[in-house]
Amino acid sequence: MFPTLQSALDDWAHAEPILRGVADSLAHDAVPHARFHERDAAAPLPRAYQWADGSAYVNHVELVRKARGAELPASFWTDPLMYQGGSDSFLPPRDPIPFHDAGWGLDLEAEIVVVTGDVPQGATREQAIAAIRLIGLVNDVSLRGLIPDELAKGFGFVQSKPASALSPVLVTPDSLGAAWSDGKLSGVLCVDLNGQPFGRADAGDDMTFDFGTLIAHLAKTRSLGAGSIIGSGTVSNRGPDGGPGKSVAAGGRGYSCIAEIRMIETIEAGAPTSPFLQPGDTVRIEMLDARNHSIFGAIEQTVTG
Amino acid sequence: MFPTLQSALDDWAHAEPILRGVADSLAHDAVPHARFHERDAAAPLPRAYQWADGSAYVNHVELVRKARGAELPASFWTDPLMYQGGSDSFLPPRDPIPFHDAGWGLDLEAEIVVVTGDVPQGATREQAIAAIRLIGLVNDVSLRGLIPDELAKGFGFVQSKPASALSPVLVTPDSLGAAWSDGKLSGVLCVDLNGQPFGRADAGDDMTFDFGTLIAHLAKTRSLGAGSIIGSGTVSNRGPDGGPGKSVAAGGRGYSCIAEIRMIETIEAGAPTSPFLQPGDTVRIEMLDARNHSIFGAIEQTVTG
Repeated sequence: MFPTLQSALDDWAHAEPILRGVADSLAHDAVPHARFHERDAAAPLPRAYQWADGSAYVNHVELVRKARGAELPASFWTDPLMYQGGSDSFLPPRDPIPFHDAGWGLDLEAEIVVVTGDVPQGATREQAIAAIRLIGLVNDVSLRGLIPDELAKGFGFVQSKPASALSPVLVTPDSLGAAWSDGKLSGVLCVDLNGQPFGRADAGDDMTFDFGTLIAHLAKTRSLGAGSIIGSGTVSNRGPDGGPGKSVAAGGRGYSCIAEIRMIETIEAGAPTSPFLQPGDTVRIEMLDARNHSIFGAIEQTVTG
Repeated sequence: MFPTLQSALDDWAHAEPILRGVADSLAHDAVPHARFHERDAAAPLPRAYQWADGSAYVNHVELVRKARGAELPASFWTDPLMYQGGSDSFLPPRDPIPFHDAGWGLDLEAEIVVVTGDVPQGATREQAIAAIRLIGLVNDVSLRGLIPDELAKGFGFVQSKPASALSPVLVTPDSLGAAWSDGKLSGVLCVDLNGQPFGRADAGDDMTFDFGTLIAHLAKTRSLGAGSIIGSGTVSNRGPDGGPGKSVAAGGRGYSCIAEIRMIETIEAGAPTSPFLQPGDTVRIEMLDARNHSIFGAIEQTVTG
């Protein structure tokens, strides 16, 4: 009936009650079913009609600037940064991250994403929140070595953002209970690098722009089609003193991308010491609920050269 | 068998001979058919998985800079400018252009587009040219008043590029004969504004980067999915003296966007006099073949407030 998630999103008013019925039947073992293996899952939207990624955790943006010795424009606290990304391919959650060139500076970015229904041009923040159909995670793969030149051109990211990986599962807002509120998802985003805790930031903290604000920003001049994927940007928490956070090993919440620890190393010691991703490195991104169950399944990728 | 153009592009090796057979049958009146009315046509890809727009006519970019008193970086002649656009909605060729706010500076941009098959990461220019399946026209609607702030942010165009309109018909490269050569389309791109000739630039002239080069640029770090739409940027010709071209009324080839005539007015007289698009204005974009037949049908839009 709905051969793809996109087809359900295209006809959500009709699809939602049917799919909820299927979910209930599955939950009650009322229908025959096979076990769902995350490792076999494609991206829930293996290709999408839109992928627009914000920078909602302005703390992260401020650190990037600080490491470059540049001031953060005051408008960055009120006017969201957002780029239009390539949406023609999202990697499955267990697919390798291709490594091509050490100079490209391969990095992960652990983020929250939402998938919208149709959003009319000029939608308010509240209308935008009401249009959020599904929530999940993304590893927004980035090529740090290529970003400065593309930023200087002003036209956004074309070469510095290869395909991202989506979490194996997207969930409805209501299924998240109190963790989803006012267009923000609360909960610890667990990022492991080579099996070690690397990031434990709470996605609900320090999010300057909620998803309603991000979507309304994108929809200011045009409508958005059902199935648009909107990203939060790299999740990032400040330290308790308001400054840059500490690593998990040092008792802090760590980082959701390598660039951030490199910026902190640069601010503190003048130069970065943590390398970007190399062939053989593994990245795992996951969020657990209050009962320690994985909400979206895990993105788990190995870098392969 | 192929309910959408995307489904044919997804399976082109299989689809192409079948669709050529259908086209032959239609051309020979061998099958019953209804007349094709451009006015009833949706965009050939009403939504696409990718829309990436280059600035292949560097003359246009140089004029923009000159009007701002800025130098063109030398790298702009060798490294293509390109932005990732919103691909979730392409307007039908006869749909109105929505007018929302006079301060947004509504403009047209008449361009050539190509639609690709799958393109592997790292494709050469030659491989990229071989992956071009279809060619057409686009009116890349732009909001000039919003561009400077978005350019300054460096993240590309999010609010300043609302939905574009595609030509009613896309054609295969071979059907263009000698007009399609080495990844470039030659021919006069006719742009009329309110029924008057506004642009008569030749798309084959002054195109610094051919489509193979543009596609290879985009595919440097990632593969491209079938159905990716790649734009040339605003078609723009130099004058015979190498300087900015003259208006059609003054015997020149005119312009493919209003911004360009405003830049020339600014360079010549210190300030622009031509207004951006207003409600009631009409835009027509078309290319004729050697026998004066319309190749792609016409994009014909009225601005409605």
